[in-house]
Amino acid sequence: MQIAYDGTNYHGFASQADEDVETIEGALNNAISSLTGESISVIGASRTDAGVHAYGNIAVFDTASTIPADRFFMALNTKLPADIRAITSYEVQSDFHPRHTNSKKTYVYRIFNGDIMPPVLNNHYEHCSFDIDIDIMKSAGGYLIGEHDFTSFCSVNTQSPDHVRKIYDVDVCEIPYELNVLGDVSDKKNQKIIEIRVTGNGFLYNMVRIIAGTLIDFGIKNRNPEEIIDILSRCDRSAAGPTAPACGLYLIGYEYI
Amino acid sequence: MQIAYDGTNYHGFASQADEDVETIEGALNNAISSLTGESISVIGASRTDAGVHAYGNIAVFDTASTIPADRFFMALNTKLPADIRAITSYEVQSDFHPRHTNSKKTYVYRIFNGDIMPPVLNNHYEHCSFDIDIDIMKSAGGYLIGEHDFTSFCSVNTQSPDHVRKIYDVDVCEIPYELNVLGDVSDKKNQKIIEIRVTGNGFLYNMVRIIAGTLIDFGIKNRNPEEIIDILSRCDRSAAGPTAPACGLYLIGYEYI
Repeated sequence: MQIAYDGTNYHGFASQADEDVETIEGALNNAISSLTGESISVIGASRTDAGVHAYGNIAVFDTASTIPADRFFMALNTKLPADIRAITSYEVQSDFHPRHTNSKKTYVYRIFNGDIMPPVLNNHYEHCSFDIDIDIMKSAGGYLIGEHDFTSFCSVNTQSPDHVRKIYDVDVCEIPYELNVLGDVSDKKNQKIIEIRVTGNGFLYNMVRIIAGTLIDFGIKNRNPEEIIDILSRCDRSAAGPTAPACGLYLIGYEYI
Repeated sequence: MQIAYDGTNYHGFASQADEDVETIEGALNNAISSLTGESISVIGASRTDAGVHAYGNIAVFDTASTIPADRFFMALNTKLPADIRAITSYEVQSDFHPRHTNSKKTYVYRIFNGDIMPPVLNNHYEHCSFDIDIDIMKSAGGYLIGEHDFTSFCSVNTQSPDHVRKIYDVDVCEIPYELNVLGDVSDKKNQKIIEIRVTGNGFLYNMVRIIAGTLIDFGIKNRNPEEIIDILSRCDRSAAGPTAPACGLYLIGYEYI
C-alpha cells in the first residue's frame, strides 16, 4: 500500500513499546486489524521521524482477507484517522520486503524564507528569516550527486554500518506560486518559498534533514559551494551543518527498480 | 495591524459571550493588553467564520503605548499564539474604522479535486472527488463581476439590509505546482488543485463560500455558465448552490481606497 500522512500529531512511523504513543505504524496496524479481523503488523518502507510528512510511504503486510487487493485501500480509509490515507494498494510477491528491495526514493524539504511565516504554513515548512541565496544552495547540492560515503550527513546515532549511498539528483528551486496565495507581497522584499528535492537509493538516519540544514547554511552565509566536497571527504558529522526541523520534510515516493 | 492566522482551532474572529470559546479577536485583545498593560479591544475589518484562514485581516485599536507603531507588530508576536501573527503595524487617523472605510478586499478559495486528498492538505482545502470543469467555473464566475444584488449568494441569517455589492474580479485557475509536491501523479488522471480568487468592495455573510459552492456545482454538473445571470436575478438564496466548507477560505487582504 502507498500511504500518505500528516506527521504533525504522530511520534514518527515506527511503533513504540509504549502503546499510548501514537505512531503511523500503530494506527495502520489497528485499522487493518479492525478491517480484516486478523492481527496485522505492517512492514514500512521508511521509518519517518516524528513530525515528518509523507505522500508515498509504503506499507506491506500479509492477509487472508477476501477484499480485492486493488480495492483494499478504499475499505481501509473508512477505518483510518483523517490524517492518514491509503492512496493505492496491490498484491506483491510474498517475499517482497519494502526496505530490502532496490529503490529510488524522493524527499522534498520546504522552507519559508521571510521575516514572519504565515501561520497556515506552521508544522509544514521550516521558517528561516535570514536571507538565503538559492543559487549557492543549488550549486552546493550538485556536489552531493553520485555515490559517496555520507558519514558527515548522518546522525551519530545511526545503526547502519555502511554509510555509502547513491544520490541521483538534488534540486533547489524557488516556488513563486505560494506567495500569490499569501497575498500581495510586492512591498516585502526577500520573502519566498524554497524547495529542496533529493532522490537517492537510500538515506541514512537524519540524512535529508542534515543535507537541508547544510544547504541552508551555505545559502545564508554565502559559502563557497565547493566546500561541500571537503565536508563529504571528512566523514565527520560535525563538518556538516545543523539538522533541519522535521516539519519541513516530506517523503514523496518510492520507485522499486 | 495586518493580521494572519490559521483559523482551524478558533471559533471565528468575533469574540463571544462565553470567554472559554477561543476566538481570534479574544486572542488579539489578550496579547495586546498583556503587552501594553491596558485593557484593549480591537476592531476587526472582517469577522471571519470558524475555520476560515487569513493572511491580511486588519485590526485597529487605541493605545497609549510608547512602542513605536511601525514596530508594534514585532513586540506583539512575542505574546501571540503561534497560529496568529501580526504582519505589519502603523498609526492611522484616530477616526479610522476598518469596516466603515471604502476598501477592496480579496478572498481565495482552494479546492483539492481528486479521489483521495493528501492529509497534509486537511483543514486548508475543500476536498471534492467529482471531476470539475474549470473552464465552466471561470465562465460562470465572470457573470458575477460588476455591481449586483447578491441576495442569492448570501446566508438567510444575514443582518445586512443592503445586499448590493460590487465585485471587481473573479478568477478561477488550476495550480499545477502543488501536485509536484504531492508526488508523481502521472498515473492519476483528474487530480488537481483549483483556486478561486474574488475581489470586491464588500461581501455579505457567507457570500464567498456560497460563490465557491455554486461555481463548484456548475463545474461538476457542466451547467451552462449563463445560468448564473438567472440565479442573481432571482434574489433567492435557494437559487444558488451549497455553502462551501470554511476550511478552504482565505481572507488575503484589504486595500483601502
